[in-house]
Amino acid sequence: MRSLLLPIAMLVTSSIALPSMAVVSEKSLDDAQQLREIALRSHLGYDIVESLTVEVGPRLAGTPADARAVAWAEDKFAQLGFDKVYKQPVKVRHWERGHASASVISPFPQPLAITALGDSVATPKGGLTGEVIFFDSVPELKAADPKRVNGKIVYIDARMHQHREGKEYSLAVAGRSIGSSVASEKGAIALIIRSVGTDKSRMPHTGNMRYQEGVKKIPAGAISTSDAMMLMSMKKRGKAITITMDLGTTAFQAKTSYNVIGEITGTTYPDQYILIGAHLDSWDEGTGALDDGAGVGITMAAAKLIKQFKPKRTVRVVLFANEEGGLIGAKEYRDANAKDLHKIKLAGESDFGARSIWRFDSQVHPKNLDLMASIAKVLKPLGINHGDNKAGGGPDVSILPAKGVPVFSLRQDGTDYFDYHHTANDTLDKINPEELRQNVAAWAVVAFLAAQSDEQLLPLTINTNLDK
Amino acid sequence: MRSLLLPIAMLVTSSIALPSMAVVSEKSLDDAQQLREIALRSHLGYDIVESLTVEVGPRLAGTPADARAVAWAEDKFAQLGFDKVYKQPVKVRHWERGHASASVISPFPQPLAITALGDSVATPKGGLTGEVIFFDSVPELKAADPKRVNGKIVYIDARMHQHREGKEYSLAVAGRSIGSSVASEKGAIALIIRSVGTDKSRMPHTGNMRYQEGVKKIPAGAISTSDAMMLMSMKKRGKAITITMDLGTTAFQAKTSYNVIGEITGTTYPDQYILIGAHLDSWDEGTGALDDGAGVGITMAAAKLIKQFKPKRTVRVVLFANEEGGLIGAKEYRDANAKDLHKIKLAGESDFGARSIWRFDSQVHPKNLDLMASIAKVLKPLGINHGDNKAGGGPDVSILPAKGVPVFSLRQDGTDYFDYHHTANDTLDKINPEELRQNVAAWAVVAFLAAQSDEQLLPLTINTNLDK
Repeated sequence: MRSLLLPIAMLVTSSIALPSMAVVSEKSLDDAQQLREIALRSHLGYDIVESLTVEVGPRLAGTPADARAVAWAEDKFAQLGFDKVYKQPVKVRHWERGHASASVISPFPQPLAITALGDSVATPKGGLTGEVIFFDSVPELKAADPKRVNGKIVYIDARMHQHREGKEYSLAVAGRSIGSSVASEKGAIALIIRSVGTDKSRMPHTGNMRYQEGVKKIPAGAISTSDAMMLMSMKKRGKAITITMDLGTTAFQAKTSYNVIGEITGTTYPDQYILIGAHLDSWDEGTGALDDGAGVGITMAAAKLIKQFKPKRTVRVVLFANEEGGLIGAKEYRDANAKDLHKIKLAGESDFGARSIWRFDSQVHPKNLDLMASIAKVLKPLGINHGDNKAGGGPDVSILPAKGVPVFSLRQDGTDYFDYHHTANDTLDKINPEELRQNVAAWAVVAFLAAQSDEQLLPLTINTNLDK
Repeated sequence: MRSLLLPIAMLVTSSIALPSMAVVSEKSLDDAQQLREIALRSHLGYDIVESLTVEVGPRLAGTPADARAVAWAEDKFAQLGFDKVYKQPVKVRHWERGHASASVISPFPQPLAITALGDSVATPKGGLTGEVIFFDSVPELKAADPKRVNGKIVYIDARMHQHREGKEYSLAVAGRSIGSSVASEKGAIALIIRSVGTDKSRMPHTGNMRYQEGVKKIPAGAISTSDAMMLMSMKKRGKAITITMDLGTTAFQAKTSYNVIGEITGTTYPDQYILIGAHLDSWDEGTGALDDGAGVGITMAAAKLIKQFKPKRTVRVVLFANEEGGLIGAKEYRDANAKDLHKIKLAGESDFGARSIWRFDSQVHPKNLDLMASIAKVLKPLGINHGDNKAGGGPDVSILPAKGVPVFSLRQDGTDYFDYHHTANDTLDKINPEELRQNVAAWAVVAFLAAQSDEQLLPLTINTNLDK
């Protein structure tokens, strides 16, 4: 938890003996540059994403396709010659979408492109029908008189615009994550949101939601941004709007999935790990090419290419289970490996699409910043700037700094990421092989140089609970 | 028919007395320029498309939505103050899509985004399953040994690339229009085509097809270009591919729809017509914004704006029924008005989206080319070049030159038209209001100046059948 974190510099600076040698050898820097150039010419990252999207396709956690993805990952690690391949069981939710349809019934009948939000309950058989009440945001809904909302379908029209860093996502996503509970508390019969996306298209965006305990579960769906625009234009006509919606979702019993792990064993420090990862699961409507097949391809390829340079530390690739369900595999990874997390010397996840990386951030002890600067120098020819020491590490990895794990981020251009995010349009054709190669090169450089440094790698903050 | 057409210059040059006066008065040219500037500031064209897509939406011929579109058009003409509003009955086919799904069953199970082609028969209840045989084109399929095709699902992967003039459409569309009959003759159980589109997306493109007489009707669908790419990658793995597909189409009895017509009556030559038009029907998955709501908005707005300048000839806006079914309304219009077609002095249809116009073409008698040049001068500030005298006139209008009607084309930039054409993604958000205004201005200028010229307007060719 945040409140238990203090800058390590304030606590333990004097007690840590950092080596005085160069943060990384000239030989390793030369190797890293060579590795970078090899990666820039390698098609391996793209081949891996192609393989995953063609041979497995969508792989929603808990489904048979998810099980095929796990088998695919084990096979792929083995084919690529990883030294160690294993998996770790994770209990995941299993929910399936089924059919989804919606239409305006009056005043102007026409169909809407809708998708159920992840974990939504189904509508009653044959669907439900109700008058729509419009809100621009969750706060506006929260402020509404329940009498106005009761018995209606709540519609939330939170908008999101393109931005390199995807800045508006966290705001816009509130309607998706908690909207149904807020609406239900006021007596709404269902929730429809404008898709959390930056496209202008007829592709609705799904994504995770969670019902608050004690609140009646009401069905929740997202309509495409094109339909949202149409619905808001219809609203201007000033007549009551009635919608029917039919979501055929099913919640099954929890299933066992797996974090799948492949390692290139370190020559000098085999028990110290540089963890690079991605998540293996995907939403069900696209083929999970950008989210997160790209990350799978980038990190597997980076580690494979590192192998020929014989890294000193072990490079561990973790393909997390069920990230989309709420970091389920990551939490299991954290808990099951609680006693060994200190062996992870640096960690990062690639999970923001497949566009070029423009910035390298870290979250490491200040004494490791020279090493980060050395790494940044090798990244520079890739068009990557050295950022700050406030890296999050990526969704699944973001929970590790609280356990004392140093992390890094290689930040991708996310301008069009939310055009495709969680839609059927998340497919291989959205990946530019050239940009993917730049990603592989960057991940290879960071993981390799972190593996090569004889310097002790330490976290920025120490969790005061660590010793408990 | 083409073989009956001869250049009029060869036949009747000497018999036609063309007036020697200026092709159009200075006053009319001034008015046309003023009209152009008014149109460039008018939001009317966009408001009309918005109204049609929001208040009616998709309007497949023969459906209740088509009937609502007819009522909408009559109301809209009346609201806009057209002098005369009427409709002409057209017998149209009535076909509905129902559900559509498809999946690869083996070797790599995953769903495909599919849509039925217009007029396709349904699959047997519960769908059909078969091994896929791949072809690049209809000619390749035609050349195939029936033994290889028999009992299989034929897949045709004809590709199409973006082009300002949509040049590859006529080639790529062969698989859609006749592929099912060719496949069926060789014993195929179904046809799947790569969508006839230039996008990279998960949106399949529907469109019309026609079964040859005497051939067993087999179900026919199109998969999205993203799925086509995936399927071709799967094929490279060298294993037999089995697909299941389920199309729930229904053919109903023919219905009566209508060509809806609005006129601004001419002050001097009320019985001579400048016909500008678009088609009112649309495919069912989008809202028909580009195809052809844009044309409806452009031509209605152009005529409405012309009204204040009191045109000498009557400006007639024809909204054709069931273009998508194969120019059904246009053929009815031609036949029902056979005796009056000579009163149409110039005709054109807007049906290629909503992007800017870049070229003005005509198909008129050589003696009318000076008038065309005068019109082109007023179009020039809109960024429109004067093209040639080989205009087609637009789909519905293309059948009129054979009956002696002079036509024109205002050619739009079609670069991204086939990204959205016949998909669910044909929605209002694809229309740039600025570009639509340029269209309205151009149509207003051409229709107005053609209405103002006291010159006799004659066709390029005379049909030798005309007197029969």
